Formats: sequence, C-alpha cells, structure tokens
Amino acid sequence: MLIDFIADYHSNIEQYPVLSRVKPGYLRQLLPPSAPYEAEPIEEIMKDIQTHIIPGITHWQHPSYFAYFPCSSSTAGILGELLAAGFGVVGFNWEASPAATELETIVMDWFGEMLSLPKPYLFSGGGGGVIMGTTCEAFIVMLVAARDQKLAEIGKDKIGKLVVYCSDQTHCALQKAAKVVGIRPGNVRAVATTRAAAFALSPDSLESAVLADVEMGWVPLFLCATIGTTSTTAVDPLKPLCHVAKEYGMWVHVDAAYGGSACICPEFRHVIDGVEGADSFSLNAHKWFFTTLDCCCLWVKNPDALKRSLSTNPEYLRNQASDSGGVIDYKDWQLTLSRRFRSLKLWMVLRSYGVANLRSFLRGHVAMAKAFEKLVAGDDRFEVVVPRRFAMVCFRMKGSDDDDDGDEGANNLMNKKLLERVNGSGRVFMTHALVGGIYLLRFAVGSTLTEAEHVMEAWKVIQEHADAIQGDYKHLY
Amino acid sequence: MLIDFIADYHSNIEQYPVLSRVKPGYLRQLLPPSAPYEAEPIEEIMKDIQTHIIPGITHWQHPSYFAYFPCSSSTAGILGELLAAGFGVVGFNWEASPAATELETIVMDWFGEMLSLPKPYLFSGGGGGVIMGTTCEAFIVMLVAARDQKLAEIGKDKIGKLVVYCSDQTHCALQKAAKVVGIRPGNVRAVATTRAAAFALSPDSLESAVLADVEMGWVPLFLCATIGTTSTTAVDPLKPLCHVAKEYGMWVHVDAAYGGSACICPEFRHVIDGVEGADSFSLNAHKWFFTTLDCCCLWVKNPDALKRSLSTNPEYLRNQASDSGGVIDYKDWQLTLSRRFRSLKLWMVLRSYGVANLRSFLRGHVAMAKAFEKLVAGDDRFEVVVPRRFAMVCFRMKGSDDDDDGDEGANNLMNKKLLERVNGSGRVFMTHALVGGIYLLRFAVGSTLTEAEHVMEAWKVIQEHADAIQGDYKHLY
Repeated sequence: MLIDFIADYHSNIEQYPVLSRVKPGYLRQLLPPSAPYEAEPIEEIMKDIQTHIIPGITHWQHPSYFAYFPCSSSTAGILGELLAAGFGVVGFNWEASPAATELETIVMDWFGEMLSLPKPYLFSGGGGGVIMGTTCEAFIVMLVAARDQKLAEIGKDKIGKLVVYCSDQTHCALQKAAKVVGIRPGNVRAVATTRAAAFALSPDSLESAVLADVEMGWVPLFLCATIGTTSTTAVDPLKPLCHVAKEYGMWVHVDAAYGGSACICPEFRHVIDGVEGADSFSLNAHKWFFTTLDCCCLWVKNPDALKRSLSTNPEYLRNQASDSGGVIDYKDWQLTLSRRFRSLKLWMVLRSYGVANLRSFLRGHVAMAKAFEKLVAGDDRFEVVVPRRFAMVCFRMKGSDDDDDGDEGANNLMNKKLLERVNGSGRVFMTHALVGGIYLLRFAVGSTLTEAEHVMEAWKVIQEHADAIQGDYKHLY
Repeated sequence: MLIDFIADYHSNIEQYPVLSRVKPGYLRQLLPPSAPYEAEPIEEIMKDIQTHIIPGITHWQHPSYFAYFPCSSSTAGILGELLAAGFGVVGFNWEASPAATELETIVMDWFGEMLSLPKPYLFSGGGGGVIMGTTCEAFIVMLVAARDQKLAEIGKDKIGKLVVYCSDQTHCALQKAAKVVGIRPGNVRAVATTRAAAFALSPDSLESAVLADVEMGWVPLFLCATIGTTSTTAVDPLKPLCHVAKEYGMWVHVDAAYGGSACICPEFRHVIDGVEGADSFSLNAHKWFFTTLDCCCLWVKNPDALKRSLSTNPEYLRNQASDSGGVIDYKDWQLTLSRRFRSLKLWMVLRSYGVANLRSFLRGHVAMAKAFEKLVAGDDRFEVVVPRRFAMVCFRMKGSDDDDDGDEGANNLMNKKLLERVNGSGRVFMTHALVGGIYLLRFAVGSTLTEAEHVMEAWKVIQEHADAIQGDYKHLY
C-alpha cells in the first residue's frame, strides 16, 4: 500500500504547488496535542499524510523544482534505503555486519574509479572512501584530522593559532565546521573572489592571505576548494591552489558536493584536474547522483589521519576481527558510532542504471540547462550573470537603465520581486544568490523527473511574471 | 517485490546464524572490480543480495540477537523511513518543507509528554526537541553550545582550561565528542565508579574531582549523566549530580540513549527523577523504541544556546519565513545543514502502536529479561553481576574457586571462551563488558521479534556451552 502511495505521489506530483503554501503553525492546529493511547490503523495515518502532511511539503522531487541544488532521487535509491531499513543493521565495526563495511569499501572504489580519482584515494591505492550523511560531517572530520595532525607538530595548546582558508563563495558549512572544532571564528579567511574570475578562488589571492597570516604568526591549517559553489557553481582551480597550500603545509579538502558527480562524464573530468595534489575529496551522491538523502561520499589519501583523531576502543566494542587489525571499523573514520547501511542504496543506483545511463542522465540535465541558458540569452530583458558550467543557470532581469546602486538597487529589488512571484505561482520553485552585489536567480536543473517541457514551462512562467513586473515598473516610474 | 523480500527476510530470519560467519575480505572476491557499464535488472541485484550480502549480515533484527543494545525496528518504522525516502525532501529550514519541521516539533512534544519530561524541555514550555542521527551528534552539539557559552564568560582563548565530567561508565562517544570540539583529551574526567554502587556516578566523587580541578585553575564546563550505561545499564542519580554541577556552573546533559525509552512506563519514570535540574536530555528511539536507525531525540531547555553556536545565515538560504523569526530552522539546532524527514517514522511508530502498546512491548522485554535473570540466579554455576534495571542482564559463570586474579584471571578467560562458543554457534549473539575487573556477559533483550521461547533457547545454548567449558576446565586442572 505504501509503495503504491509513493508511486502515486510521484505520478501526481505535478498537481501540487512546488513550494508549499502553508502558513507557519498550520500543522499544530491539525494534529491532536498528544500521542494516541491506542493504536491507530494505517489507513487513518495515510489519510492524514495525504491531507495534512503533503500540503506542507515543498516538493523537492517535483519536475518543476529548480531551487537550491537538487536532491535527486530514484527508484533504485528509494528501494536501497528501504532495504537498509529492512535489514536494520548497525555497522559501526566490521563484525557488527561485515557486508555493510565491505560493500562500502567496494562501492567507494567503484565510484572513485568512475570519477577517475587518482589511485591514492582508493583502497586499492592505500587510501579509501567512506559514506557519511552530509558534507558538513565531512568538513568536521577533515578539520579534526588536520587540526590534530598540526597540533602534534606545533604543540597542543596552539589551537588558537590555526587558520582555515576558503573563498567567499565556499559553503557556510565550512565556517560552522571550523567553529565546531574549536578554530577561532576570526581565523577563517574567506578570500574575496570577483565576477571577472567567475567567482573562483584565485591562487594569488590565497597566497597573499597566507603570507600576511604567516607574518603575523598565525599557522595555516586547511584549505577548502570547491567544485561547483552554491551561489554560481564556480570551480576553484585545484592545481595551483594545492601548490600554494602545500607550500605552507596545509591540508587540502576538495568539496565537490554538487559538481563532483559530473566527473563521471569524461568531458567534465577536467574540473577536478589537480585533485592529485589534495588530501581529501567529497561529493554528495544525494545531490546530483540519484541516491536518496543522505549519502556524502568522502575519499581520503591517508585514512590513518582520521583514525588517529577519531578512534575509540572501549572494551564493550572489542572483538577478534578488530583486534586482528585486518578489518575496517568505520566508526573510526567518522563522528558517530552508529551508522546506517548506506552503501546499499549507492550500490543499487550504480547497478540499476550503470555508468552509461548515469552519464546520460547527467548530460540530459546539462542539456536542459544549456537550452534554458539560450532562452535567457535570447531575451533582451534578461542576462546570464556567469557562464553556466554544469546544470545550473545564473541569470537576472536587466535593469531599465544601466546604473545599479549596489545590492539594494532597483535591479536587485526587481529580481527579488520576480522570484517571489514565480515561486508564489506554485508552478516553479527557484532560489537566489547574491554575488558581487548582484541578486541573481538560480535555475538548477537536476530533479530526476524534470524533462525539457518543464524547463520550457518554467521559462514561460518566468517570462509572464517578467512582463507583469515590467508593467508595474513602467507604472511606477 | 522488495517489500515481499523484506517480509520474507523477517519471516526466515531464524534460519540464519545471528552473527555472520564470513571472513574478512569475503565480498571483494564475490563482486566485480568495477561498476557495470550497462544497467542490470533488479532480479540480478536481488539475487546477489540473497547470496552475497545476507551471509555477511549480522542479524540485528534476529529474535536471538541479545548483543550490544538492540536496534529495535518495526513495520511502522520501516514504512516511515520508506515514506521519507519517497518524499525526498531536505528540511533544513522551515520553508524547504514546512511539514518536516512542524511534524518534528509536534512529535517531540508528544514524545516528551509521554516521558513526563518537565515542561521547560517542550516547545510548549519554551524549550524544544530535535531529531538527530545519533547520540554522538547530540554530544557534540551540546558540548559546542556549552563551550561557547562558557568561553563568552571567561574569554575566547581559554578553551584549554575547560573540563568535562562523566563517569568511567559513560559512553566512549563523549570522550570523542569532547576531542572533536577542541577540549584537551586530558581534560575529560572519567570519575571512577564501584560495583558496590552498581557503577553509578557518585555525586561525592564528582564534587571531589571538581573541587580538585577548580583549585588547580581548571574551569568545569559540562557533566554527562547516563541513564542506562552501556556496560551494565547503570543509572546515574540526576538530582544530586545536577546539584553539584549547577554549583559550579556546568551544563548537564542526560544521556538516556538506552534507558530513556522505559520512562514512558510510570513504574520506570523515577530513573530520570531530577532531570528538571539538567539542561538537555537525549534518547535513541532507534535503540529500544521501534524506530529504525537513525533517530536520536534530543530535548533542550534553551534552544537559543544551540542557535547561538550553530546558526548560519548565508544569502542563498534566506527567505521570508526565516527572516520573520516566526519559524524554526532546524539547521541551526544541529551540526549539518541537510536533514532527513525523520519525524515521519517516529510519528508513524507512535500512532501505529499507541502509548498502550509501546508500554506493553517494553514491559514484555523487561519481563523476558527478568525471567532470564531468574534462570541465571537459579543455576549454581552462574551469577548475576549487577542487579538488572531494564531489559539487560549482566551475568557470568562463577570460577571454580573464589579467588580471581584480576581481569586476566581464569574466570574472565573462561567467560570469554563461553561467549566465543555461544556466538560461534550462530544460535545466539551476545556481547561482553569489563567492569571493575570483571568480564561479564551482557544479555540485552530488545529485538522486536524476540519472544519468551528465544530467551529459553538462548539459556539452553549458554548452558550447553557452559557444560562443555566446565568439562574442558576439569580436564585442564
């Protein structure tokens, strides 16, 4: 019944407004104040899901969902999650379910090979991969490993000296992760990027920042480079960045949460050229790789650095296999002890679709984004703000005149209004970013159900509202 | 097909050895070295799951699984997980799926009320609850919130001064969490417990430790009290512990990962008497509450302390609802940005079974453990090491004479041997602990499928192997 319910949900999803229209507090008015004393039939619960829950859902799987980044799902991914829940194992160490650990090592090698990751990132090359929930966890783990390694060199009381580098486009999760692990909030350097450089981190700017810090007695610890930033899918140039970072003894993590998936297509692989110079690399298979949330794939060259920081060995978890040293206990590679059997869904996605289909799904999204970019470029009222790299288009309405007055300017306001109206229509959901003072609209193609017609329809909706807004503006001025 | 597969798995689960018998590396020999280029049919994948994966599973849902703590599942929990995967929403803030946030607040209030948590822990009383993956995450979040609050008082550079308190029975995840957030590993005080006090943390011992630290210039930060420790399900006395901790300005977290669930039964609620004096309280609904992994429920009195440490507000996540301040954005209550719709499964468990059934499930497990305890006590060769509190029995074979020579003694070795043989039989899986030099066997009842006959059967297996071991020992000495 539930499988049918989900199948129906996906079949009928287009009937719902993409962005939920409920008002804050709507659900508390609909549900009883306490848990029921007696059991309730599943039919009753499903009825409530239909009438109370679904209206409060912003439909990330809707084919007209173009907001944030996708959280692309698939039948294989959902079934893998179901199967993992059905087995209900907790694979914190090898013994607690050997298959959970071993499948993860195998699948991470498979996937790493598909991405052409350099051998030292794979188990077969002395490194290895692990599946976490999200990139935020990967950031914390990498920072802890790097921190402890550095403090072992410079002295345990020097945590206040450590500095983390990134760009002003790096995901906010890095700042948060640095704070969590005890780096002084003032010691995260978000190096400024420019529109001229398509918002990529400049190795020269990085080096200047590092030099200034070193002169002041700070200790460079960590560089996070991004492949596909959140605001504009900018790509930081790995090779020269790693060169600078290594000169100063930093750990380099490559956050390819969104853009990494594309590297299974040979024509995109160049975006991670230079990854051989980094220490760790992660991407979210739940973003643009058809594996349900959560599934962050992290590869590291030196798993021992993680294990030195994160191992626990209480008597109640001891067992012969672990004591032998011949197995992987993933609890020592991550923050938490308990872990779900996440490799199952990734394995099912890889096998159910195969490399060929996965490439063509991604290429399909890129083609749709390309088509959308062309539509935007062909309409005088609009402009593409930065060249498209993957399957996301950053665009905006041009102002009626050419002089903006900064990020509070009329143009930004107009685009904000446009976004509100488009999202309010329920027919499309997009989100925005603010870069270099420019308020831009992000059109991120990646929902598994999206087809060319949905992109065309979205463009029509955007144009209609642009017409209306131009009318308003004419009226006002 | 997959639902049937899972149903069949649960129906046939008793035919499998509880503890997997595969050897390290078994799976790499069975699977191809690379991902398939072309799609493979689901039938092929399911065949591999049956022949390659299931033999490598340690069956946590097996009715003869008595190891670690349970990870008790249920049909409602599995279906809730499936439904969440089917919706595929990412509820990091309210707007991204209002229902995901609102249902979580409602269910956490329901559950808190079932546990008779004091009003200040509930949304309706100014506090509130949040669902995380595991207790490890809850530890990190609580420590970060407490750390930042304290450093704001004493100075940002004093992180090296902070001290965390717990007992030598507290879960190892606390030490790890403290390390993650930058507390010096030497500054976690694991206060010694005694068998005489049933391994509970003594308020007097705590106070002595704190006094000694304060005299040395250290700054008390955090106390973790446990309700149901891993080794022996010891219960730390909250009221007097909170009294000491508050005297010295510490944050008190109550880790009721295992024992907390029992508090929905009035006869067990007393184990958290005094919780009103603490700051935060967590339990794992995936442990002994029929909700599939992962589902750690955390309640805090002062969510602002979390939000001060964990909030992020990048432009690309801004929206009217968040800006209004009138909604909850759970991203600011936790480590990660992305989050699954976990409240759905907890809601489905609460509704599908109701308070009455949930109580009777827990009482059933307790009754089975009680019956097992009686069997142990009635056999002269065995002893119960600490009095049973919940649904776990700590026992061991007595030595042939009364003088043990410490934790490496003959008695410990004999019990270790017994455990190996029992687990090797495939008919039962238990684990062990080492407390006060005593190697004990932990018999944790809690698997959803376990019935009285499985407990009787387990006891028979244990007795058989005890006979064999006694024979061996007679032969040797």
